[in-house]
Amino acid sequence: MSIKIGILGYGNLGRGVECAIRQNPDMELAAVFTRRSPETVKILTDGVPVVNVASAAQWKDKIDVMIICGGSATDLPKQTPEYAKLFNVIDSFDTHARIPEHFSNVDAAAKEGKKVGIISLGWDPGMFSLNRMYANAILPEGKDYTFWGKGVSQGHSDAIRRIEGVKDAKQYTIPVDAALEAVRSGKNPELTTREKHTRECFVVLEEGADAAAVEEQIKTMPNYFDEYDTTVHFISEEELKKNHSGIPHGGFVLRSGKTGWESENSHLIEYSLKLDSNPEFTASVIVAYARAAYRMAKEGQTGAKTIFDIAPAYLSAKSPEELRAHLL
Amino acid sequence: MSIKIGILGYGNLGRGVECAIRQNPDMELAAVFTRRSPETVKILTDGVPVVNVASAAQWKDKIDVMIICGGSATDLPKQTPEYAKLFNVIDSFDTHARIPEHFSNVDAAAKEGKKVGIISLGWDPGMFSLNRMYANAILPEGKDYTFWGKGVSQGHSDAIRRIEGVKDAKQYTIPVDAALEAVRSGKNPELTTREKHTRECFVVLEEGADAAAVEEQIKTMPNYFDEYDTTVHFISEEELKKNHSGIPHGGFVLRSGKTGWESENSHLIEYSLKLDSNPEFTASVIVAYARAAYRMAKEGQTGAKTIFDIAPAYLSAKSPEELRAHLL
Repeated sequence: MSIKIGILGYGNLGRGVECAIRQNPDMELAAVFTRRSPETVKILTDGVPVVNVASAAQWKDKIDVMIICGGSATDLPKQTPEYAKLFNVIDSFDTHARIPEHFSNVDAAAKEGKKVGIISLGWDPGMFSLNRMYANAILPEGKDYTFWGKGVSQGHSDAIRRIEGVKDAKQYTIPVDAALEAVRSGKNPELTTREKHTRECFVVLEEGADAAAVEEQIKTMPNYFDEYDTTVHFISEEELKKNHSGIPHGGFVLRSGKTGWESENSHLIEYSLKLDSNPEFTASVIVAYARAAYRMAKEGQTGAKTIFDIAPAYLSAKSPEELRAHLL
Repeated sequence: MSIKIGILGYGNLGRGVECAIRQNPDMELAAVFTRRSPETVKILTDGVPVVNVASAAQWKDKIDVMIICGGSATDLPKQTPEYAKLFNVIDSFDTHARIPEHFSNVDAAAKEGKKVGIISLGWDPGMFSLNRMYANAILPEGKDYTFWGKGVSQGHSDAIRRIEGVKDAKQYTIPVDAALEAVRSGKNPELTTREKHTRECFVVLEEGADAAAVEEQIKTMPNYFDEYDTTVHFISEEELKKNHSGIPHGGFVLRSGKTGWESENSHLIEYSLKLDSNPEFTASVIVAYARAAYRMAKEGQTGAKTIFDIAPAYLSAKSPEELRAHLL
């Protein structure tokens, strides 16, 4: 009997979840829930219903895990607690500062509904958090570094698009090689924002727009660009479509630490990701944790969980015996 | 109240555990147990007793977690089950093929003693296993690669020392850069043993030994060297002591996988370690899991566990709230 998954929200992430489910033979997509008119939403999987989100409650007994694919700004703070009363839920809530509040809301709702709710999954928060935590526990005397990229920052791309005279734009966050190498060498450098990452922008202008003025506005934009070395390229709409339509991302989590009676030995733990598709990788992490949510709920567990609370074996389709024999 | 740790066996690993305990303020070293005459064993920590292993049972109520620092060939298969009847235990059993059998022996003993026994901790098996498992669960369609080094292989160094005419020797296992780069490029190469690693040997000869004959014997030694490109350097005893007395190691675990409806997107997950001291890093992993063993036992859990069975939060001295607020 396979694990029945619901997808709530069908954008890039929802579509990524749909693709990931197909790679996991113990799971099946039960339904996609949307705020749009269901007949306007075309999904990839044959024979699976697209349903208006208003009737989600009717699916209470037909879905093992509901994956909430909304945005962190306004959707998830409302949706995850709401649906945790009815379903085991998973989300990718990524506003780091509001995680404690979100956890507590989901925890209360999930306990009320006797369900499991796993929040903030993906790669950061998610696999990067996990690696930071493991590395900290192993090397208590040390220093953490996180680098992002090379990859597309949706927030920065949006910020450029809001500038007058800009028709479209894509922004790449790029880790600075020299900074990465300094960390890897065990020097434990103190790195400024500018030393860690650069920003590269590809901008399509509206007809008649002032390129120099746009470039100046980008480079001096507070919080987004002013603390970075930023490069701006003006390109045609065709070129943007042709060369910059992907959503790659990735990054590096490093911990450099010391051991020994006199702290005489150095160690470096490094975890890195190189992703062609940010939403598809995030979806792949989420789907592995959907298996965990299903199993934990079967055991009678309830409430909110994070990636820190879940034993690794829950993620794998393999049995504990197979894992010990082949992956340990 | 701190977690009271016992160390059973005081070699490189035991000494590493002793150093790691000092870096974790919630732990203290209660006693070191040895098969030697206790008065001949000098430890680093002031005021901690060294006790003959024969009287370990008397420490039953004075030790929260006993860390068994014996060898995998003959010590651990006997010691870990034996002491799991009396103590929560941890070992670094690393004979991959015999893990299922060892697990089952420790499981029976630990359940009988109502204790927790965590086996096969360190980095391989250990953190490398964990990363293989996570990466496999996230990217079910993909290929795994493990590279070891640059580092000292104790087994290979010993094999050289057994050759007639060899006074001392040290062997380094070195991953081949071109192979690593081929994996990172997403090409999913099929790699032979020879293509993945080279072996470099530093050998001190007995007076009058035949260098050419020794070199030939090393390079053609079945299982150990014959499938590798091996370099042999003859050096003086002083040089070996001066430049090759450390025990560095490390390596890389990579998974290259595909996502998307038509498997159109590639992803690379890479975990790597660069370690000045193999035994001290192994000890640091073990000590973090000692915290987990202590907590799981407090909860009433019993039986054998592996790194796959333990939720990450158990390893950290931080509270779940702190972890969510600062590391997620």
